Amino acid sequence: MNRSKERPLDRSVTPAAGASGADFLQLDITAAPPGGLADWLAAELRRAVSDGRLPLGSRLPATRTLAADLGVSRGVVTEAYRRLAEDGHTTADGRAGTRVVATPLTVGEAGDGGRTASVAGGVGGVGGRTAAGGGVVGGNAGGTASVVTGVEGGAAGGTGRAGAGRGGGLFDGVPGSDVFDRLRAAPAQVDLSPGAPDLAAFPRGEWLRAERAVLADLPAADLGYGDPRGAPALRREVAAWLARNRGIPADPDDVVIVGGTAQALGLFAQLLAADGIDTLAFEDPGSLGVRQHLVRAGLHTPPVPVDADGLRVDALRASGAPAVLVTPAHQFPTGVVLGGRRRRALMDWAARDGGLVVEDDYDAEHRYDRPPVAALRALLADHVCYTGSISKLLAPALRIGWVLVPARHHDALVEAKRFADLGTATLPQLVLARLMRTGALERQLRLLRRRHRRRRDAMVAAIGEMLPGAVVRGAAAGLHITVTLEAYGAVSDTEVAAAALGHGVKVHPLSWHRQVPGPAGLVLGYAARTPPDITTGVAALARLLTA
Amino acid sequence: MNRSKERPLDRSVTPAAGASGADFLQLDITAAPPGGLADWLAAELRRAVSDGRLPLGSRLPATRTLAADLGVSRGVVTEAYRRLAEDGHTTADGRAGTRVVATPLTVGEAGDGGRTASVAGGVGGVGGRTAAGGGVVGGNAGGTASVVTGVEGGAAGGTGRAGAGRGGGLFDGVPGSDVFDRLRAAPAQVDLSPGAPDLAAFPRGEWLRAERAVLADLPAADLGYGDPRGAPALRREVAAWLARNRGIPADPDDVVIVGGTAQALGLFAQLLAADGIDTLAFEDPGSLGVRQHLVRAGLHTPPVPVDADGLRVDALRASGAPAVLVTPAHQFPTGVVLGGRRRRALMDWAARDGGLVVEDDYDAEHRYDRPPVAALRALLADHVCYTGSISKLLAPALRIGWVLVPARHHDALVEAKRFADLGTATLPQLVLARLMRTGALERQLRLLRRRHRRRRDAMVAAIGEMLPGAVVRGAAAGLHITVTLEAYGAVSDTEVAAAALGHGVKVHPLSWHRQVPGPAGLVLGYAARTPPDITTGVAALARLLTA
Repeated sequence: MNRSKERPLDRSVTPAAGASGADFLQLDITAAPPGGLADWLAAELRRAVSDGRLPLGSRLPATRTLAADLGVSRGVVTEAYRRLAEDGHTTADGRAGTRVVATPLTVGEAGDGGRTASVAGGVGGVGGRTAAGGGVVGGNAGGTASVVTGVEGGAAGGTGRAGAGRGGGLFDGVPGSDVFDRLRAAPAQVDLSPGAPDLAAFPRGEWLRAERAVLADLPAADLGYGDPRGAPALRREVAAWLARNRGIPADPDDVVIVGGTAQALGLFAQLLAADGIDTLAFEDPGSLGVRQHLVRAGLHTPPVPVDADGLRVDALRASGAPAVLVTPAHQFPTGVVLGGRRRRALMDWAARDGGLVVEDDYDAEHRYDRPPVAALRALLADHVCYTGSISKLLAPALRIGWVLVPARHHDALVEAKRFADLGTATLPQLVLARLMRTGALERQLRLLRRRHRRRRDAMVAAIGEMLPGAVVRGAAAGLHITVTLEAYGAVSDTEVAAAALGHGVKVHPLSWHRQVPGPAGLVLGYAARTPPDITTGVAALARLLTA
Repeated sequence: MNRSKERPLDRSVTPAAGASGADFLQLDITAAPPGGLADWLAAELRRAVSDGRLPLGSRLPATRTLAADLGVSRGVVTEAYRRLAEDGHTTADGRAGTRVVATPLTVGEAGDGGRTASVAGGVGGVGGRTAAGGGVVGGNAGGTASVVTGVEGGAAGGTGRAGAGRGGGLFDGVPGSDVFDRLRAAPAQVDLSPGAPDLAAFPRGEWLRAERAVLADLPAADLGYGDPRGAPALRREVAAWLARNRGIPADPDDVVIVGGTAQALGLFAQLLAADGIDTLAFEDPGSLGVRQHLVRAGLHTPPVPVDADGLRVDALRASGAPAVLVTPAHQFPTGVVLGGRRRRALMDWAARDGGLVVEDDYDAEHRYDRPPVAALRALLADHVCYTGSISKLLAPALRIGWVLVPARHHDALVEAKRFADLGTATLPQLVLARLMRTGALERQLRLLRRRHRRRRDAMVAAIGEMLPGAVVRGAAAGLHITVTLEAYGAVSDTEVAAAALGHGVKVHPLSWHRQVPGPAGLVLGYAARTPPDITTGVAALARLLTA
């Protein structure tokens, strides 16, 4: 570990039980600005991680201990720890406390010239490199190695120089079924992978208050096995939500609550199989994650091209596929909206040719510079299997979604859900129902829109400034943008993504989401990151692409 | 509705918004005993339902309103309402409040001779009757019809005499896949169907406190998509729990968190299919619900007889089946324990013949008069797919279970779980982990054991007194007993169950859980009911069987 007597504070790194935190990092609370204690503390801790006083694998003191010793409220320490966890420096480790798992990106930080150089020194051109060479951000001020090993599962204990590289092999070849788990597990300072809203905005207090109210009134029998369709209270609220926000007239009895879109796709596959359908045409580009689920469920997913107006319905027709999965409100990953003429053509295909549409309405509530687009389900209920979820409104970790299917499939859907898991857990359903009923979810959506828009603007501005050759798509709505990289020569986007991860920035290569080869690009989530993080991440990408 | 001016309180039955509850039932708070306000209020409300002042379909005032008007805390009213809901008188109806859905069983209540007679008058012999004739408990004191209609889905608005019968057709022919949903939805005064612990004992306050603590410390990133294997904190606690309580040495990395046993069975079926196994021998009698899941998943379930020592391993061997599902700690439904010699024989079958054991450890933590029995998984990890859940420890509505499989199946299990739903919801996992870590779950288990034992004793005593011919099995552990009815002649247990439901008592006919015909019997859950309810329910069964 290369710790020496010359750094007398090392003993505070793994404080023994009962050890005072008073000496911890020799923090001087009087240096903190009034009203900015948590900011100050987070910055101090980041600095300590950065300069090696808090090496990889070391543990922070308990929040209670540090708060007492600094003479601040525990909330200040908790908030500072949370920020470190959010930007990937630390991880909560259960009873064992909080552990340092990554060193910060030091690029652009004032007064750290030497470290900036060392980061840049690890960056090469990306044309012919793979991720295996990434991951070394060596030579920091303290003289300790700050390699972040990329072993899946978060075992970041190794501090040797010969790290395996972050997410080693993650971007090689065809992405495996565990690719998103591996990407998530890889440590990084800035996570620009798409798919999450601003998780720091999750209304913890509101959630807890709603849960208290639910528990106060819940009949004990409701803690038993429930309706496989979901709690009646939530089905009622979801029906109202869909009518209000997505233009879909829905009877609560038609709504089925599921464990997120992932489960919905598996249930849909069962309905399709019962109809003898084994082929579900798929947008190209289109979500790799969604397609993996469909393939696992036994479906063929022939690609149908997407252009600036969305799915090419003529190509769908020509393919002869009996069914298609679309993301009409904000196509994943391109962000285009299915145009009016295309919508009519798709509905015509469904109504006249008996085509079945699976509508994945994954982030439609999030829009900034354009009018709302009603769901396809609103137009032709008899031909549309619809799914939406709370993942982009509150948090993916809640694993709650909803489904509407054509009336003839309803009983089979309920049957499939019953045998999947006997129904989704009741308590979180009732809490969510309450947040919907009281208007808290609408407020949350308005809050998210404001925050996401600022983040979107920060990302677009950073790209305009630092990656002027990148073509930005899909910025008018959603939680991510897509950039294509034609201006940067014959780069491989998987290699760019691998190199980026090697330098602490997570992105999706656009080619992950293609079945048919096309221009290299990146899918960049902005909603879950702060503007400074976004700028830092884009700057790292710019260095890789312009090296 | 036959309400008249002579009953001046009828107006209070559906109080308009803002109407004072002061006159509601002319409740006289000074008549309540000190310290027993909720008891008193619940009794008053039951009486009002019973004598027609609160007819079927009427709504109770808001808890806040009634509390203010009585000058008691809202908790008193909430508690009284909860008791009415628990014994099936009322149902929570979302924003619309609490609605009366059933009249009480009036049997054995002091001072109600006329009604007792009328209940008895509706009961005939059960030898040749079906459920269609049940459901009428007519002629109560107020002169209103108190028929409880048995329409699935809880639409209990009808008050005419010609009710369709509760759960009409529920017990006819082979039970359908929705049979448990229909039974649950049928209104009843006493629910003796097996499968739930004492739900009124759910530690609401502890749960909420644990959730507050979890939310206070949760890094925002943990609100994103999680590890499909489950939250590390819960896997750690489950491993410790299994070691402590079930004798199973388990590494947290081997544990996979699932959405209850139902989901576990579907995942196991995928592992078996990958091994080319399409046959899973099944205990007979054995759980209908479990078998329905297996059959749905494409498995054949040939019956293997169970005797007083559990599964007949010789018969399993003779069947040639490559795999078997067992409930060794407390066989469902007979309650027998797999004997020591049988355990050795089964392990020998697994180890030497390469047999695969699926161990459904559904209620093993609950035992009263016998020493604990370690799980089979503890003996031969390489041949046992193990599943347990929180359903019988806290509540089925939580939909959390855990799974351990032989090491060679582990990756396929994770893959199956990932594609089922990307993992179980995170927050409840972390709350549960905290309850396990702090010892709250152990305390809950000790509490439940005491309460369940009293209820078990009440049921056994009631049967001994009122149904002396019934043979009780499996009372030393678990949440239910089984009785066989040889002494009562050639009765059909489905007809007994149908008639019982017609008189407000839910039970499972033993034949539901048989593939091979055998003596008629009933499966009676006691854990979720109070001793008085248990006595009332057994009394109703006794009247049916001894009429």
